[in-house]
Amino acid sequence: MNQFFIDPSAVEGNRITVTGDNVNHIANVLRLRKGESVQLVEQLSGLTYYADIVSIEPDSVVCEIQDVQSESRELPVAVTIYQGMPKSDKFEFVIQKAVELGAVRIVPVNMKRSVVKIDPSKVDKKCARWNAIAESAASQSKRGVIPEVSVPMSFEDAIADAGKCEAILLPYELASAPVSEKDGGSSEPLSDMDRTRSILNELRSHEVKSLGVFIGPEGGFDITEVDRACEAGAHIITLGNRILRTETAPIAILSWITYLFEK
Amino acid sequence: MNQFFIDPSAVEGNRITVTGDNVNHIANVLRLRKGESVQLVEQLSGLTYYADIVSIEPDSVVCEIQDVQSESRELPVAVTIYQGMPKSDKFEFVIQKAVELGAVRIVPVNMKRSVVKIDPSKVDKKCARWNAIAESAASQSKRGVIPEVSVPMSFEDAIADAGKCEAILLPYELASAPVSEKDGGSSEPLSDMDRTRSILNELRSHEVKSLGVFIGPEGGFDITEVDRACEAGAHIITLGNRILRTETAPIAILSWITYLFEK
Repeated sequence: MNQFFIDPSAVEGNRITVTGDNVNHIANVLRLRKGESVQLVEQLSGLTYYADIVSIEPDSVVCEIQDVQSESRELPVAVTIYQGMPKSDKFEFVIQKAVELGAVRIVPVNMKRSVVKIDPSKVDKKCARWNAIAESAASQSKRGVIPEVSVPMSFEDAIADAGKCEAILLPYELASAPVSEKDGGSSEPLSDMDRTRSILNELRSHEVKSLGVFIGPEGGFDITEVDRACEAGAHIITLGNRILRTETAPIAILSWITYLFEK
Repeated sequence: MNQFFIDPSAVEGNRITVTGDNVNHIANVLRLRKGESVQLVEQLSGLTYYADIVSIEPDSVVCEIQDVQSESRELPVAVTIYQGMPKSDKFEFVIQKAVELGAVRIVPVNMKRSVVKIDPSKVDKKCARWNAIAESAASQSKRGVIPEVSVPMSFEDAIADAGKCEAILLPYELASAPVSEKDGGSSEPLSDMDRTRSILNELRSHEVKSLGVFIGPEGGFDITEVDRACEAGAHIITLGNRILRTETAPIAILSWITYLFEK
């Protein structure tokens, strides 16, 4: 069944009046007809209405509510992805997949090794496009909220922004540094993976409600960025022994968070 | 540093002679020159040679070994992805990402709801292309082996093939069935996620060495396929409360396996 997001004000009694871009999508793109069923998700509350179309007008579609459910598809932890700005098609891919996997917010970050710099005069247009991708992905994966894609930030602004999260993670290629150096040469050093699992288990057992994850761009983080994130309290983790592309890393960490936190 | 796969026979004393397609790639695509360093991974052993280019000929590149390492980037469990045949571009994406995330083999499976049927006369050409994508992804993510993409199989053949694995997983949308029905109405039923975590933890504590994972195509599994897989001993699991696309599901499960099994 096709899902659309609606504003709480669209609901009146047992009727829902769909307006805006969704009307064209329902009537002309999907060519739905009177009597067909749709799933309408109320923003903010995440309430899902199962409704039948009763009339299609040029600028509105009126539906009759058949059933309502409050089943949540949201992760119990609000994850923000701070994505080192990659090439355009990769960023769009990250938005789509991060939304599919439960992120609530995606922040493009201009990092030292980002090859793409967004022309300031085009930020508004880009941002509108990114948010449209997020909305479409949220509909397709039947999310209860539309994740927001924010305007691009500097690394420093992103660190300040992430300060609102209960914890910050930063996956980084640690494998090259000898374990003894990282753990102060203790006799039984943990592997990078064991250390990472221990950090994530700790966060889960504390039931943190918000997590910020920093992802390096194609060329990776500059070491000064890693140091700065550490100062701000970020946990440096590994994503395993293979080298992941910048657009794969957010998918991997969101999958891990799902595995650990999902009820 | 650029990585290439070499045959064990390419190594002789402290010299390695690179031949085949890699020569053109090194000399004309990447335009590497004498004195530059490359990483050469010996197939089967996974040994990594760090070597400097000493000469570039029209059909060979000779390198001098500077260092050799046996550091493994392979997962401790051999994962085969049995992917319900999706549209062509999605399958190529699955190959790239599955290789990046550590799968050792990818098997395209013709499932009931697969919309794409491969023309038998084109199988050889398709297969060559898929394996080239796997090799390129293996180089980029510095894998020690080149995962194989097999010829497309029927569902029944895939089930027989997966019989060689120590365990079989099949992610399926369970969320719609009431939990009480699935657990025989026990008083404290596990959630789908808890049940899934318990299955995966069991497999990890038994240190299984091989895992087959069945992924449904765009339209999902047909219920008869799920039943057949159950008969063959597959564990039915959930990948969380959101609906994942067919090409996202293998990435999510490979990420979970990395989280659980990586040393």
